[in-house]
Amino acid sequence: MKVVKFGGTSLASAEQIKKVFQIVTSDSMRKVVVVSAPGKRTKDDSKVTDLLIACANGYIQGDGESYLDQVLERFEEIIRELDVDVMEQIRADLYEVVQGDKSDPAAYMDAVKASGEDNCAKIVAAYFRKQGVKAQYINPGVAGLIVTNDPGNAQVLPQSYDHLYKLRQEDGVLIVPGFFGYSESGRVVTFSRGGSDITGSILANGMKATIYENFTDVDAVYAVNPNFISKPAEIKELTYQEMRELSYAGFAVFHDEALIPAFRAGIPVHIKNTNNPQAPGTKIMHTRQHTNGPVIGIASDTGFCSINVSKYLMNREVGFGRRLLHILEDEGISYEHTPSGIDDISVIVRQQQLNEEIEARVVARITDELAVDSVAVERNLAMIMLVGEGMRSNVGTMARAAIALANAGVNIEMINQGSSEVSMMFGVKEEEEKKAVCALYEAFFLVV
Amino acid sequence: MKVVKFGGTSLASAEQIKKVFQIVTSDSMRKVVVVSAPGKRTKDDSKVTDLLIACANGYIQGDGESYLDQVLERFEEIIRELDVDVMEQIRADLYEVVQGDKSDPAAYMDAVKASGEDNCAKIVAAYFRKQGVKAQYINPGVAGLIVTNDPGNAQVLPQSYDHLYKLRQEDGVLIVPGFFGYSESGRVVTFSRGGSDITGSILANGMKATIYENFTDVDAVYAVNPNFISKPAEIKELTYQEMRELSYAGFAVFHDEALIPAFRAGIPVHIKNTNNPQAPGTKIMHTRQHTNGPVIGIASDTGFCSINVSKYLMNREVGFGRRLLHILEDEGISYEHTPSGIDDISVIVRQQQLNEEIEARVVARITDELAVDSVAVERNLAMIMLVGEGMRSNVGTMARAAIALANAGVNIEMINQGSSEVSMMFGVKEEEEKKAVCALYEAFFLVV
Repeated sequence: MKVVKFGGTSLASAEQIKKVFQIVTSDSMRKVVVVSAPGKRTKDDSKVTDLLIACANGYIQGDGESYLDQVLERFEEIIRELDVDVMEQIRADLYEVVQGDKSDPAAYMDAVKASGEDNCAKIVAAYFRKQGVKAQYINPGVAGLIVTNDPGNAQVLPQSYDHLYKLRQEDGVLIVPGFFGYSESGRVVTFSRGGSDITGSILANGMKATIYENFTDVDAVYAVNPNFISKPAEIKELTYQEMRELSYAGFAVFHDEALIPAFRAGIPVHIKNTNNPQAPGTKIMHTRQHTNGPVIGIASDTGFCSINVSKYLMNREVGFGRRLLHILEDEGISYEHTPSGIDDISVIVRQQQLNEEIEARVVARITDELAVDSVAVERNLAMIMLVGEGMRSNVGTMARAAIALANAGVNIEMINQGSSEVSMMFGVKEEEEKKAVCALYEAFFLVV
Repeated sequence: MKVVKFGGTSLASAEQIKKVFQIVTSDSMRKVVVVSAPGKRTKDDSKVTDLLIACANGYIQGDGESYLDQVLERFEEIIRELDVDVMEQIRADLYEVVQGDKSDPAAYMDAVKASGEDNCAKIVAAYFRKQGVKAQYINPGVAGLIVTNDPGNAQVLPQSYDHLYKLRQEDGVLIVPGFFGYSESGRVVTFSRGGSDITGSILANGMKATIYENFTDVDAVYAVNPNFISKPAEIKELTYQEMRELSYAGFAVFHDEALIPAFRAGIPVHIKNTNNPQAPGTKIMHTRQHTNGPVIGIASDTGFCSINVSKYLMNREVGFGRRLLHILEDEGISYEHTPSGIDDISVIVRQQQLNEEIEARVVARITDELAVDSVAVERNLAMIMLVGEGMRSNVGTMARAAIALANAGVNIEMINQGSSEVSMMFGVKEEEEKKAVCALYEAFFLVV
């Protein structure tokens, strides 16, 4: 039995939903279909979820009707072209949701946001039935998908898995809206953005699926950002950990939280293309054949900064690092890495957390409370991850990477390589990101 | 005006003390002489300080006389050969010290230990006078060298510097015992082992010396451990920070705490050889000419272990690193570095802190309190430091190092490179230390 999830572009129009129908019905093992809200039809289009967020904000401030109209138009167009009879139900549902209790704005927002997936699932179920396929819409609450009451960042509760196993007894194709569950008190609560992937993974785990197919709009996960390299190598197989390391720095194909339920149950995740379902796609699993040299992918991301602290004999001061991290935690700043020398330590953070005011306060607190010799913030850094299982057992990997960067004239601002056998991280200045990534891609993928 | 410090081997015998006299009197700027306790005369000899520690432990347990006799013999031989008349005074002093109050064993130990330097200074002063040179023994307490009451780890108190400045008014050569000061309540308290270097540096700072000469038994600081490479390059000039980074990992020529007072006052430290005073030695100062390529020295040390922790989505857990470090601090373990990947972090500690019992407890606490996926301890690692000012602005340094290690077949277990412009650290297995250091030495010192 397979759980199949379709992303926003796969459901953006009636035409796309017809492809979904073809894909699902071409394989009788495809029992559970998880759907996102309709996404962009063209590059400049709006996602239904974005319209719903604007709509909720509008209603909270007393005027969201124009956005609601845009949402209704999107659904109306799809329903008209699919020729299914659910518009009245959807209209009634949406009116009820937007008129709901706004005393807790976060809960209200979640209820409105979730209606994108919810109504999409109803449309898809209706279309399947109209085509003569036995199919039913499954409400996540009724199915027992229970989550923490943490709006916009729900976490699945363990009892959900047992509840969901019972869905195996249901007849026909089950169409489940992604992105949300219900709190124990029965409120709609959404996962973090892109969370339909999470719903699919939870269902695959709970229902003990043999595979979790995740249909999106690319043929495969690429070995490098296609904005830097045209027609990059496609990755056929990835391990869970490789996918996790890649997704950290810019590989947004699959939601990283969504890997957990599948990983725990050992269920392979198969990334495929709705618009080209014959392409082999990318399989994510526990172990893979090493066929592609030490590096399987190169990820990179910008927007990091480094808080560089130095203090003579820092190294002998018990508790220094812990107290430094405590100041950041106290200021609500989460950090990524802490490469260090003897008497210096750098704390790498995503710089969106550090506006001028917060930076000044953090610098002042570090100076005062830790009596350091110097503290300075270096902005606009990019982190580049070389990812590949077993890469570290390959003696020459670091040399190959360092030569490539040196030959390209890229200065390495920092290197972080801990016990992980799967990745190596380089920090470079943002303006050198593309040059560095291209040099590494050439060294590991083009030169053999 | 120069402060000159002589180490234990420079005072190990009457013959050596005669060299000290020649060196001091050959330069009229050499005003202040700081002395260690007599060290080893041959490889298998005992240091007087080690005999005194055994002696104090013996007296605490009720029987230290045999050690006291050995100490007296060492002093007697030196005094006899120098033909000075201080033996009765020294014998009386030592008997008084060992009969002292033992109710606080740490304070008693400090008083006994300090008598090695103290009596050596009295002998040297007597010898200078016998040679017709105006010289006086200076007691650190009378001179105002006031320290914290932290036996075996005293820290100088700031008022000492003003007190010591007044020594400039004293006539003749001043012979000052190293290694200890006095607490505010008038007790002898020692610095950490090797702390005569610290006394010299404090005096140089307080007395505003033009230079602090540190006489030892090597011609210079070598670029690499002479046990690995025979006749390694001698370093002519080093910056304070380079010296600090080198001394972290095995460069024991100069006590690292001793750099601080000289560094703060901007006083150059000149390492010279008592047995070959014509050799140019090594100068440590604020800035140096870059003449020797990017790397000035390669240090390494063994006895490290890595506590490798992994947890899926660790990276998203605010406070994880801080809580991990807190557990270690709670167990009294200080750490060196924390290289990290996305969902893993390694904490590098000196493994002498981690016996089987403590390791088991730390692993259990990390597992329970942080709910990690795995925690494992990897022992017997060596840390290798490449040190050199401005090294980091040299684009190819990492490539050169990584190629050298790859060609030597050395796997890099970890790399730590933060904001410091002065060093790069590689972790390797202990059995690969020598191979790695030799490969790096060849790459940076022999190939041009």
